[in-house]
Amino acid sequence: MIDHTHDMSAMSWVEMGSGRIDFPIQNLPWGVCSKHGIVVAIGEQAVVLREAIGLGKLQFADDIASALQSDSLNAFMALGHADWTEVRHALFEMLIGESCPEVLCALSELMLVMPAQIGDYTDFYAARNHATNVGKMFRPDGDPLMPNYLHLPVGYHGRASSVVISGTDIRRPQGQLKPDDSAPIFAPCKLLDYELEFGAFIGTGNAIGDRIPMDDAMEHIFGIVILNDWSARDIQKWEYQPLGPFNAKNFASSISPWIVTIDALAPFREEGPARLDGDPDILEYLKPVTDDVLDIQCCVSISSTKMREDGIDSLQLSKSSLTNLTWSFAQMLAHHTSTGCPMNSGDLIGSGTISGGTKDSRGCLLEYTWRGTEPIDLPDGTQRRFLQDGDEVIIKAWCESGSATRIGFGDCAGIILPHN
Amino acid sequence: MIDHTHDMSAMSWVEMGSGRIDFPIQNLPWGVCSKHGIVVAIGEQAVVLREAIGLGKLQFADDIASALQSDSLNAFMALGHADWTEVRHALFEMLIGESCPEVLCALSELMLVMPAQIGDYTDFYAARNHATNVGKMFRPDGDPLMPNYLHLPVGYHGRASSVVISGTDIRRPQGQLKPDDSAPIFAPCKLLDYELEFGAFIGTGNAIGDRIPMDDAMEHIFGIVILNDWSARDIQKWEYQPLGPFNAKNFASSISPWIVTIDALAPFREEGPARLDGDPDILEYLKPVTDDVLDIQCCVSISSTKMREDGIDSLQLSKSSLTNLTWSFAQMLAHHTSTGCPMNSGDLIGSGTISGGTKDSRGCLLEYTWRGTEPIDLPDGTQRRFLQDGDEVIIKAWCESGSATRIGFGDCAGIILPHN
Repeated sequence: MIDHTHDMSAMSWVEMGSGRIDFPIQNLPWGVCSKHGIVVAIGEQAVVLREAIGLGKLQFADDIASALQSDSLNAFMALGHADWTEVRHALFEMLIGESCPEVLCALSELMLVMPAQIGDYTDFYAARNHATNVGKMFRPDGDPLMPNYLHLPVGYHGRASSVVISGTDIRRPQGQLKPDDSAPIFAPCKLLDYELEFGAFIGTGNAIGDRIPMDDAMEHIFGIVILNDWSARDIQKWEYQPLGPFNAKNFASSISPWIVTIDALAPFREEGPARLDGDPDILEYLKPVTDDVLDIQCCVSISSTKMREDGIDSLQLSKSSLTNLTWSFAQMLAHHTSTGCPMNSGDLIGSGTISGGTKDSRGCLLEYTWRGTEPIDLPDGTQRRFLQDGDEVIIKAWCESGSATRIGFGDCAGIILPHN
Repeated sequence: MIDHTHDMSAMSWVEMGSGRIDFPIQNLPWGVCSKHGIVVAIGEQAVVLREAIGLGKLQFADDIASALQSDSLNAFMALGHADWTEVRHALFEMLIGESCPEVLCALSELMLVMPAQIGDYTDFYAARNHATNVGKMFRPDGDPLMPNYLHLPVGYHGRASSVVISGTDIRRPQGQLKPDDSAPIFAPCKLLDYELEFGAFIGTGNAIGDRIPMDDAMEHIFGIVILNDWSARDIQKWEYQPLGPFNAKNFASSISPWIVTIDALAPFREEGPARLDGDPDILEYLKPVTDDVLDIQCCVSISSTKMREDGIDSLQLSKSSLTNLTWSFAQMLAHHTSTGCPMNSGDLIGSGTISGGTKDSRGCLLEYTWRGTEPIDLPDGTQRRFLQDGDEVIIKAWCESGSATRIGFGDCAGIILPHN
């Protein structure tokens, strides 16, 4: 068993490097690289599964071995939690056993690609502070939260084909906009935004017509990534009624390349999500029965082309936490499948923007600059209301609580390119 | 070349059967069956591509031959229009040449499966009569059409994993409902509906960041199927604000198994869609430049369990046409990709419910019974406001105009099962 409360990395023959480590031996997150297939990060290096199995350093039943030697994680995800844990423990044994550096590759040499083929991507809206802020801005005269908000996790289907890996440049979209009272125009998006989110990769799915109940939901989730759901606010404003966001969201969504497993997150699971005084009762099918809240912290920072050229550090904007969710991933999954909607291995579920209750925890520029009325001063002397060409947005995330070893997620980053 | 204006089926050695034929030699629609892989329907039979190529009756370059011998149409779709046309002509030559019945299989013996893996499914809302009717019912005090409606094809991302082949039973979904002023409940959907639509399968896609312009859009479409976008109206009403329909639509959408190609539909392409007096100008990126309207007719009928047991014919409800669309598939595709959203081979784009301007052309029960206020009398003595368990909904479609040979789409059917 892996002990989360001690520095077990010291037991491993893998050099861990110095400073703050994202990938201690307690983490072992999963990725895919173009040259070697499936990899697991440890310290500044990664285990190449194909190599470790080929050399007999890891031994599994045929279905597991075959899944681990493919070019995406979908087949491994489909095997289920018991097999994920078995492989985690085998990796752990190998990494504290006899030294075998020939199964490793330096992280700096990996070209990471999408870890799984995403069949369907769903984005939720599960942090009430975000929904409240957006409601206040777009519907100033009404209750900022819709009547359904505290009864069910509101979500919508997203565009799987436009989910890209961290480091992919983001082309500024064009689209139909209506900036004023005159006729709409077709033009480059002017109000380009990021959204600070997390995504849950589905491991095992459900057959059409079946449901995934709350007591089993966390078992179906393979792991978590950082998600930046880039958004074109001006396109969104004109298009979104009555069927919801569409083109405003389908040009790109970035994910961090390393999937941190639910097993690795075990010490950071908590009861909840908490309800506030006056919140309505939750219907039975959404009542938490396991510890479903993940205490994952994150921060977003920005740099302009000039800042990078001048060697100026990126500017940290907000800092938030996945504990800001009003609905957990387990609740999202139970609700999503409550109609019998089938999930498949590799499907991705986004949390929605995880704003907290304070200005410095607002998870997108729309909120952070309050629709552009409170611009940000960048260290290069310019201001930002929304993203400019050349801007890079970097999201980092980590778990750190009590005596448990820190678990990191790596980065989710992207630079804005001018429109075509 | 295939001549659409003559009875060329007489030239073929294939027995066509008597009566109204859906699949004359001018049609040659594509499907996939579980046993034989890719098939093309003709008359009451189907060409098994694997067999025809294996026996040397059809000869193609390696990439085409390989694509045609796979278990789904995705690879063939990805080859592009010139190759689709080449294969169509080769099939035609084979079917009027020397008799080779060994490449055929009776339609009645085929177990048809999904013709392609659908990466992403998008549903539009492109018939103004449907949008107007729904607007009148749900927003009686305002303009039934939203201000954006006549400026862009409104659409939303759907759930690819829940698209099923005609003949699949449809499990009545459960979900969160709010039937009255009391607290919401979790219960079986009571207001279950069908939606009479068509779907366009994308053949060749676009890279992320690129666009598909209007003059090229029809070239990217492989073909058309009938689509029934089953809808849970009570779930929809409670969940849809502010992010649009979600669980109300993700339990099942049925498609007809045969994809009728754009080549087969050539004689039924028309200019348009027509704009009405007073409609705003269309922005340049959505202006039609090729004949994008498809004159496809369709009808929906219903039968209850009792009717089928008693041998009573199904009751025809509405009759409509794809010419009722306010936005063409070409416009949907140009708009959808205007942000750089990537399309992949096998993606599906739904038209939205294609209601006409008269009661007998309303394309769903919500409209047809006007929210249940005008119930339907079934021949078994019962009434329908929405679908009951055991009801079967059958949609048929065909093209018939001028001297062109009739082209049929077959059926898209499904029976409602009780909830789990």
